[in-house]
Amino acid sequence: MADLPDDLLINGADEVAIRQDLALVALGKRPADKSLRVGRLLDVHGRRWHEDQEIVIRGRRVAWVGPAGAYKGEITGERVHEPDLAAVPGFGEIHKHIESSHLTPEYEAALVLPFGSTWTCEASHEFSNVDGPHNLEFWLKARLAGSPNKIFPLPGSAVPPTAYEWGGGHFGYDEQQKFLMQSLMVAGLDEVMDWPAVWNPENPSYERLWGMIRATFEQRGVVEGHAAGLRELPEINAFAGAGLSSDHEAWTPEEVREKLRRGLFMELRPHSLPDIVKGLLAEGQQDWSQFALCTDDRSCSDTMKLGATDHNVRVAIENGLAPEIAIQLVTINPARHMRLTPWVGSIAPGRYADIVLLSDVEKLEIAKVWADGGPVSEGRRYTAPIPRIDWPEWATRTVNIARDLSADDFAIPAEPGRQTMQAALLRPFHWSDEFITMDLPVAAGQVQRDETRNVTKFAIVDRFSGEGKVARMFWLGTGPKTPDTALACSMGHDKHNIWVVGSSDAAMAMAVNALRQSQGGWALVREGELVATVGYEVGGLMTARPPEALDAEMKHLYAEGEKVEWMYEPTFSPRWWPGFPERLAFATLTCAPWRWVLVAPSPLAPEGFVNVQTGATHPIVW
Amino acid sequence: MADLPDDLLINGADEVAIRQDLALVALGKRPADKSLRVGRLLDVHGRRWHEDQEIVIRGRRVAWVGPAGAYKGEITGERVHEPDLAAVPGFGEIHKHIESSHLTPEYEAALVLPFGSTWTCEASHEFSNVDGPHNLEFWLKARLAGSPNKIFPLPGSAVPPTAYEWGGGHFGYDEQQKFLMQSLMVAGLDEVMDWPAVWNPENPSYERLWGMIRATFEQRGVVEGHAAGLRELPEINAFAGAGLSSDHEAWTPEEVREKLRRGLFMELRPHSLPDIVKGLLAEGQQDWSQFALCTDDRSCSDTMKLGATDHNVRVAIENGLAPEIAIQLVTINPARHMRLTPWVGSIAPGRYADIVLLSDVEKLEIAKVWADGGPVSEGRRYTAPIPRIDWPEWATRTVNIARDLSADDFAIPAEPGRQTMQAALLRPFHWSDEFITMDLPVAAGQVQRDETRNVTKFAIVDRFSGEGKVARMFWLGTGPKTPDTALACSMGHDKHNIWVVGSSDAAMAMAVNALRQSQGGWALVREGELVATVGYEVGGLMTARPPEALDAEMKHLYAEGEKVEWMYEPTFSPRWWPGFPERLAFATLTCAPWRWVLVAPSPLAPEGFVNVQTGATHPIVW
Repeated sequence: MADLPDDLLINGADEVAIRQDLALVALGKRPADKSLRVGRLLDVHGRRWHEDQEIVIRGRRVAWVGPAGAYKGEITGERVHEPDLAAVPGFGEIHKHIESSHLTPEYEAALVLPFGSTWTCEASHEFSNVDGPHNLEFWLKARLAGSPNKIFPLPGSAVPPTAYEWGGGHFGYDEQQKFLMQSLMVAGLDEVMDWPAVWNPENPSYERLWGMIRATFEQRGVVEGHAAGLRELPEINAFAGAGLSSDHEAWTPEEVREKLRRGLFMELRPHSLPDIVKGLLAEGQQDWSQFALCTDDRSCSDTMKLGATDHNVRVAIENGLAPEIAIQLVTINPARHMRLTPWVGSIAPGRYADIVLLSDVEKLEIAKVWADGGPVSEGRRYTAPIPRIDWPEWATRTVNIARDLSADDFAIPAEPGRQTMQAALLRPFHWSDEFITMDLPVAAGQVQRDETRNVTKFAIVDRFSGEGKVARMFWLGTGPKTPDTALACSMGHDKHNIWVVGSSDAAMAMAVNALRQSQGGWALVREGELVATVGYEVGGLMTARPPEALDAEMKHLYAEGEKVEWMYEPTFSPRWWPGFPERLAFATLTCAPWRWVLVAPSPLAPEGFVNVQTGATHPIVW
Repeated sequence: MADLPDDLLINGADEVAIRQDLALVALGKRPADKSLRVGRLLDVHGRRWHEDQEIVIRGRRVAWVGPAGAYKGEITGERVHEPDLAAVPGFGEIHKHIESSHLTPEYEAALVLPFGSTWTCEASHEFSNVDGPHNLEFWLKARLAGSPNKIFPLPGSAVPPTAYEWGGGHFGYDEQQKFLMQSLMVAGLDEVMDWPAVWNPENPSYERLWGMIRATFEQRGVVEGHAAGLRELPEINAFAGAGLSSDHEAWTPEEVREKLRRGLFMELRPHSLPDIVKGLLAEGQQDWSQFALCTDDRSCSDTMKLGATDHNVRVAIENGLAPEIAIQLVTINPARHMRLTPWVGSIAPGRYADIVLLSDVEKLEIAKVWADGGPVSEGRRYTAPIPRIDWPEWATRTVNIARDLSADDFAIPAEPGRQTMQAALLRPFHWSDEFITMDLPVAAGQVQRDETRNVTKFAIVDRFSGEGKVARMFWLGTGPKTPDTALACSMGHDKHNIWVVGSSDAAMAMAVNALRQSQGGWALVREGELVATVGYEVGGLMTARPPEALDAEMKHLYAEGEKVEWMYEPTFSPRWWPGFPERLAFATLTCAPWRWVLVAPSPLAPEGFVNVQTGATHPIVW
């Protein structure tokens, strides 16, 4: 019927019209559009296979499913037959920051659809932190233009991540209420990460954060959690009691078991998945209904190598989980938790006709993927059109620094007459209660780096106020040893100011100025020359280009980065490696379990060096 | 803290205050109120037992749960120790009409709490049909007065049940939106039963019903279904595609399997439970995450005999389901489906401290029940106070008939000069496309009953307009053979006008007039005398008295009823028995799979005899 809604986004009125039509198609009183007949089909509701099944499609949805040939209505279009393939529902990401793919949603779709991912709960505190007011518009734009990936945005709770950060967006009760009332695509509140702001009434973010939680409860949304480092019984109980419904930060089977039994929905990430699956299976775990698999952050390049959600499923299977259960963990389970079962998570009437066709179930070999009722990939090749989106200025002009920076911006002046000064140091993923101190040399009136002791300089440059305010300090065990070298990036979780690490102040300024010009991405200055850039021209986080183009730029950056000698020192995170310090983009986090951090200068942290658990500040040298 | 909300009903603002407090209690920064230590405790999220556990309670909620002795905070009150008992979460009813207990909610609590039921999704199309506007107020009143049973009302979709019925309430988009916005206790839309009004755009209830569905989608509520008699693939697919999320009307393992795989959440009732459980287990069903057990309708007297939800669990266990899975089917599974996991369904922080203490898990022997953080029963004895509620007139004056009825109201005049006339007949649970016809004798100008052929008279008396409009016709295979005898009741699903069946018109009038006086319940007239009444003075459906008082009255009714000779004839429903025709109260249903029915005279069915599938009407004699 020409008068049916286009059905790209979900809203109550359209939903009614679509479902009224679907019922008539299922009854055979109106014609269906096409059908897909498959060798077998997995019912994820009951975890059972059915042989030789036909999926009858109307518009973007499943109208009927059952034994091949049993549909009594007319089918006006194509009848596709894949006798050798097994159909499972399109995979869903329960917790992913698409920004970490560094692709805008229309290109993200091209990246992940061939890997079976057809829907994503977008954990939107990256773009939310860059342009809060446009958050929802941003995430729905590609879908509205026809992209087959269903993005369900969860506005970021961490906007700002802590009360000590500033700019880009500020979400509280009113904003969250508005988002949830505006669209049924909004499933809830993204991972509540600022644990001190949850439990501690004295915390300056307390009212803002609980306001968002309240609005989410009121609109019957899901409050997602992030319980990193919360492993003791008081904290786990407190976290669950606070109403935070899930966690994706558990690392061991013990931690999973303790969190699960307090009611948390457990979202498992691949790096800790082998231990957790093996451990729980060894303990006799049979009920996996409160588990999902998730990606959280994965770069476009890594996805091209490993896969998307399908990689997570394969890791689970390889570690002993039955393939059917592993598939439930990325289909019906996340759909239930996110209250999205009417639309995604199974191959059943009313749901979007998103189907992954497997040539080998045990190995999860994906032959083809259908989404929105039609094929979108063959093997690794995305075959659907990529809509052309002219991203508006609010998306493409987000590095707001009204001046060029100079070496002076990164200098750390010494007190007159001092030969050395005490300095406060951090290192990537330093989660101690105390910062590190060192006695550093003074020269030319400034406190100096000391590469012999693995000490370099790290800075955060505000990209929201226009003033380009700089917070700088010494860091240990990261950054270039190579002289006049610096690496800068406009992705710095979660506030996404620019971070820069360098062996000279002039190189640091040059790298940041390059990002000012490009409006975001990476900039590598080596021995005084800009040798590589990567463009994230959308939000300073993403690019509106094909995955291959971004991957090529990243490879160039890595290649140039290999010519640099990088400092290294182990730290608390097992995910911190020697070599090109790409993960510095996550070393600027301020959520639990971080304590002392460097943020851009803000009203509550004028020099940027602050303990986010207590609000204490401290001079960087004294 | 004296300033904490009372926490009887759920709303966003109070929820925030309560959870802020719970987090501090779990951390040991504020004192807890009391604790309950148990021999073992079932984690329903992971389906695992934990030995020697302590549940730390704050207000009505669980603040902390873990190994006995491990809580680090202060406990100001009692520490109860039950080393020999096993703790499982309070049981939840996913689909129950409390009206069918015939007790007001405060007495329903006294009835079901000792059987472990601590929360109920109230399928409210009975009271909704009697007083729609007061629906929510009615269901929340007892809880507001302190009753420990948590009632989550789902406004009835069937208000009115079909477009051919009238009075008491009319729910559409606006009403449902208002209910859902008014209280988080409202979980969704109660069972959508009028299948012809769902699929058929020509049906006069189409807009009203889809309006309610739309409002429920928009407020992120759950749309409950009722797919009775829908067993063919076109209908099952159409039902699921329409967005109706569940069914509690499946009778066989095959039907369950077919509905389950189209995504319906399967709510199993005890009468079909043995076959379904045995059948599915025999097929190898392992995943029960999309199942719950439910009661639907059970009288106070039956509950006193059988139990409440616990009876359903025992039936499941006896038929082979593992006790732990059977318990999940009345705890975490229904809570998930109804999106109530933050509050009920498990013994975990933030949830109401509702705990069933079992002395024998396999037999589900209930020793004690806690609700709202304290004990409410010992064995079968309810030990909590029953709040005294003065039900207002809108609840107690609902039989609105402004005149006494007489025999003439039930007479069926014959055409002058006719010796016999053709009559349309129904019988209880007659689900054929066609009504029955018979040639009946005429005497004294009226068409007559014929007890030799099992034919009596049945009528529906409107109790909403004040006029006492009467629809009458001949019925087959029910009602008294005994002369001058009639049975009347103000509960007549789902519109709840008064139905009356009798061997004389005068007896029928006398029985109805008795209900006019009593404002509802049952009235039995035997051989011209009123011999038994049962009082349902609230809504004409319930009584505000202890279960024992109602049970005694019912027993008297049954005893007097045994002195009557009752007609009988088998029909489509296996739940239609010889003897006292108590289930006539369900034989007035008009939902699927009914076709021809008798309703009170209404604008679309002036004589009351109508086919609810097609809207056709027909004379009752010709």
